[in-house]
Formats: sequence, structure tokens, C-alpha cells
Amino acid sequence: MAESVLILGAGLVGSSLGLALTRAGYDVVLWDIASSHALVAAGLGAGRVSDESTDDPDVVVVATPPDVIPELVAEVLGKFPDAVITDVGSVKAPILRAIDRLAPEHRRYVGSHPMAGSQFTGPLTASGDLFRDRTWVVTPEPENAPEDVAVIERLARDVGAKVVTMPASEHDVAVAQVSHVPHLMSILTASHLREVPTPNLQLAGQGIRDVTRIAGSDPALWRQILTSNADAVRHELLEVAQDLAYLIDQLDRPDALERFLGMGQAGALSLVGKHGQDPLDMLEVTVEIPDEPRALARLFTDIGEAGFNVEDFELNHDPIREVGYLSISVEREMAEKLKTKIMEGGWQAWLGSRK
Amino acid sequence: MAESVLILGAGLVGSSLGLALTRAGYDVVLWDIASSHALVAAGLGAGRVSDESTDDPDVVVVATPPDVIPELVAEVLGKFPDAVITDVGSVKAPILRAIDRLAPEHRRYVGSHPMAGSQFTGPLTASGDLFRDRTWVVTPEPENAPEDVAVIERLARDVGAKVVTMPASEHDVAVAQVSHVPHLMSILTASHLREVPTPNLQLAGQGIRDVTRIAGSDPALWRQILTSNADAVRHELLEVAQDLAYLIDQLDRPDALERFLGMGQAGALSLVGKHGQDPLDMLEVTVEIPDEPRALARLFTDIGEAGFNVEDFELNHDPIREVGYLSISVEREMAEKLKTKIMEGGWQAWLGSRK
Repeated sequence: MAESVLILGAGLVGSSLGLALTRAGYDVVLWDIASSHALVAAGLGAGRVSDESTDDPDVVVVATPPDVIPELVAEVLGKFPDAVITDVGSVKAPILRAIDRLAPEHRRYVGSHPMAGSQFTGPLTASGDLFRDRTWVVTPEPENAPEDVAVIERLARDVGAKVVTMPASEHDVAVAQVSHVPHLMSILTASHLREVPTPNLQLAGQGIRDVTRIAGSDPALWRQILTSNADAVRHELLEVAQDLAYLIDQLDRPDALERFLGMGQAGALSLVGKHGQDPLDMLEVTVEIPDEPRALARLFTDIGEAGFNVEDFELNHDPIREVGYLSISVEREMAEKLKTKIMEGGWQAWLGSRK
Repeated sequence: MAESVLILGAGLVGSSLGLALTRAGYDVVLWDIASSHALVAAGLGAGRVSDESTDDPDVVVVATPPDVIPELVAEVLGKFPDAVITDVGSVKAPILRAIDRLAPEHRRYVGSHPMAGSQFTGPLTASGDLFRDRTWVVTPEPENAPEDVAVIERLARDVGAKVVTMPASEHDVAVAQVSHVPHLMSILTASHLREVPTPNLQLAGQGIRDVTRIAGSDPALWRQILTSNADAVRHELLEVAQDLAYLIDQLDRPDALERFLGMGQAGALSLVGKHGQDPLDMLEVTVEIPDEPRALARLFTDIGEAGFNVEDFELNHDPIREVGYLSISVEREMAEKLKTKIMEGGWQAWLGSRK
């Protein structure tokens, strides 16, 4: 028989989870304090609407805003004495402390945090692919039964997520570093626009739009996330404030400034891979080119048709053989495809490591 | 006869400009200190390679890194006594001051700044559409002849750009605000990753990737841009540092924190429209729904097939007529299309302003 999951909260995350679990063969029941949300999510195919009296779930997922998570977890711990309970809150240690106060016997609660979402809210923006290839952090405590932890880990994998396990306190430091601080840097950049005369906004390009995209997220939700993780966030922000003071001091010192920019570039490149994949890694495709002008034009036509982001290239000539060599740096995963495409055009091509 | 344009510098911007101007019917000649770059750009269709001795351009565009722009402008002012000269440097007042020292008679130089580029460099990443719908700032000075300014404005429009005219000093303040400070905020966020243990990077999601994307840009280029605009950038960064200190103080004050987050959200939304378009502007599409469950499911299928980002919705019931009304908020430009799509499915739908 299919495992039965009760999802409390049919917003973006709860509804998406309902869609994904239904697809994976779970029997999903939906509840939301706004009954129209549960109705809409059910209409989308995310499960059936709870009638409360007959619910008997194997697993309960609390997918509400963080401020009501502890009381709902405490409530369902009492109401469903055999169910494993988890939640999707973005900060784990404060939720665990609050549950500890409300329901001291909570060994069936296993905290978790799917690292997925968008700047949108509500069931209409739900997607059954929301968790695919995303990280889902599970934060077990020593008192949890291993089989209960396994239930939550399997649920996460069944919706396509990659499970990472770490203690709640470590999780909270990590999200301060890679999620909450970046969010506030986006907020600081976007809020600084209040100082910018409207005509100057005409000069805004894609860069500032990318930096400020997540600042468009719901302030009420982020108020809860940030205040519940205030200590870890403050620690990181004080480091950023030191960096900012240093940066302001280096604006007239080109060498020191460039070193700092290089540190930023290295940090950005460490994230360029897909979610959770290895850092950017470049390979070089070298192509032999007969020494006549139309050859290059033909080659670029072939490369262009393959649709690559070519990051860097170098052209060298061999004066004896009267041929040239064009070396093109591309991401490792694309290099083989580019080489194949080029060779299909009748060129000689090799793959090598970047110098 | 087609106007003849000499482009000095066949990097991303110069090569893209060559592609776009060639397409627009200009006769384009390319020169680069690395002759292979000019050769590659010509191979892509961006013009023909300069042989220097016979060049006789009507317009010269200096599209090199900023540090060599003033000397090249001074050189071509002397070499081509009838040509109008412009450049594509990101900071205008220091370039103008340097030209003033090198070539005191520079009324044929009209500064400009196409607000287009990418984190990539070199002619292989060029695109004839790079300037389409982007802002191209022209920064005329009182001594410029209006017909020379008009030549540069027409060139910008001929490659699809939207021309904005402002004095060089105002331009430099504006780019500090909407480009250089966001760049440094991205750098600060990315460089802070040096403090993050590698396992914690597994928790990085799309948000930090967006915020840090532009930090991946070339540090050597940005060193030049930032040091040449250091005063304006410092002024803005000191304001950001004050905001950051305030933010750190509000982490334990939920109401003040939420107000600050709301300021960031407002700033982000002011940029959400397309480049140079109006700020985000929402309309509501209201749909009448017969009071039976499958109706909602059918409606969401229809909406889903239309592929919309639905930002918000509300479901209301009319107990007398036994129908419901679903109101969906979408961007103004999409509202009419959504309404049409919904009505094609046989629904009753209206368009209205957001409450």
C-alpha cells in the first residue's frame, strides 16, 4: 500500500511537494488554514483535501511559514502517535528548541530543509519538479530512530532531491553563509536604489537585475527566517562589514583592489557548476586551421551553430606547415560535444587541459 | 554610399558592434592590437580587417579597455581630421579629462557608453544583438557640434539601442549607483565564500548564484572601471556601509527588519520590467468558476498550458449564484494574453486593476 503523507500548508513548497509525491506514488492529503489553497493545490493534482476526521498519515510534513511550525509539529506529534513528522523550515535549531518546550517527547520529529523555492508564493506557482536535483538537508538528532530518519531521507530522494545530512546547528550556520547573507546583500543593493534619481535607473542593466532578483521575495517570510537565525547572520554580516570597509579603502589602490576583485571572481566560479556539482573546470579544444581566411569563417559558423559559450580562445600559427591552431576554452562537460561537432565539420580537433 | 566606421578593439563589444553595424548597412573596418582578434571578428562577419594605410572612416569607435582609450582617441583625432570619434568606456569624465590633456582640440570627440556586455570576453562571444533594446548613453559636451552628436546617436539607434543623453559627470554618478555598486556587492558576497567550509557550499542554491554571477567578470577590466570612478563609487559605498550597520542592529528587531526588507523589495520591483521599461505593474484577471471541483482543475490546466508566472491569486464564492471567482494577478503586459487564453477555454473572464 502506498505510504500516506499529510502535508500541512499548501503554499508553493507544500503544493509542489504534493505534486511530486503524488507522482512518486504516495497517497497525499493536503491541509491549509486557507481552505481555498488546499482546494487549488488538489485541483492541480497535488493530492486530496483533508477532512481532518479520517486522516491517518504515516508521515506528516509541516510546510507552513516558520512561525507556526513548532506548534503544528507539537500538535501532530500528539494527534498521530505512529507518524514520523518533519518540516521544511529554513532554520532548524530554533524550531527544535521551540518543539522541545511544547512537546518534550519528540523523537518522531526529524527536521529537514528542502533548498528549493522561488520568489513566488502560493499553490498556483507550484511545480512537481521544484525539488529535482536540489539539496534537501535532513538534520537528525541523537534521539531520532534511524528508521524514522530513513523515512524522511527516502521521501526527499523520491521527489528527486539530493540528501545532505548535518546537525541542526551546523545547518543554520551554513544557510546563514550561502543563503541569508546573500539575501541581505541583495536587499542592501536593492534598497540603495531609494537614493537613486529615477532618470539614472534608465542605465540599469542585467547585472543589477540579477543581484537584486531575490530581494523581491516576501519580507514577512524573510523577517521570520532572519530573526530566527539572527546570531549566525550577525556573525557573517560583521565579517562582510569589515570587507566593505577594506574595499572602500582600496578604491584608490588598483593592485589591492584587483586582488580583492579576484577573490570575488574565485568565489563566484566556485559556484558556477550545477547545484551541488563540482566547480567550474575548463578544457581546451584545439582545431587545426588551413592558412586561408575563409577557413576561420567556416569554423566559426560551425561553432556558432553548436551554440556554445566560448570563454576564451587563442590563435597560433605554425609557419613551417602553414597551418594555424585555434584553442578554445570551454566547460569540461561541453568540451567533448564541441570537439565532436567541430570534427563533424571535417576539422582536425583535439581535447586537452587548459594551460 | 554607406557610412564607413573604423572600430578600434575587436573584443566582445567591438566585434558585436561590427556585426550589428555591418547588418545595418555600414562599411565596417576592424583593428585590434592583437591582430588575431580582428581576423576572428572579420571571420564572424563583423567587417573587414584594417590595413591602416588606406583607412578613411567617417566615424571611429574606440572599443578598447579603458586605460588606452584617451591616447587612441587623441591619435585618431589627429590622423582622421574629418571623422567623428566616440568610445565605449564605462566611465566618461576621467576619459574626457585625459583627452583634454593629450589633445586640447577635441570637439569632434563625442563620448558614449553602450550599456551592454556580458561576463565573457573576446570576439568569439560577440553577438549582433548585443545592443538591441539596451541603453546607449551619449555624453555630449557644449563644444560638440550638434551634427556630430547626431551621428553617434544615429549609430547607436541603428544597432537597436535606446539613446539616453546626459552630461559625463551625471553619467558617472548614475553608473556608480546602478552598475559599479551592484558589482561590488556581488564581489563582497562572492569573496565572503572564502570563509565558508566546502561542505556548506552544498547548500548553495539559485539565489546566491544570481547574486554572484557578475562577480565572475574580469578583475583587470573592473580594476580600471572602478579606480577611474573611485570618488562616485566611494560616496555610494559609504551609504551602503551605513545601511549595513543599521541592518546588523535590526536583526533582533522584527518590525524594523521587515521594513528594511520591504525597502529592498520595492527597489527590486522597480527594476523588474524589461530594460528601460516601466516598473512592475500588475493587473488582475478574474474568472467565473462553476461550483464543482473539476472546474478548478480544468482551469489550472488551461492556465498551465499558457505558461504564466502567476504571482498571486484569490478565490471568492458567491453563495447565491453558486459560482466562484478566481482572481489572478499577473504583469500588465501578460494580462490580456492570459485573459484571451482563458476565454478560449470557454470561461468567463474580466480584466481589472489590482486591489
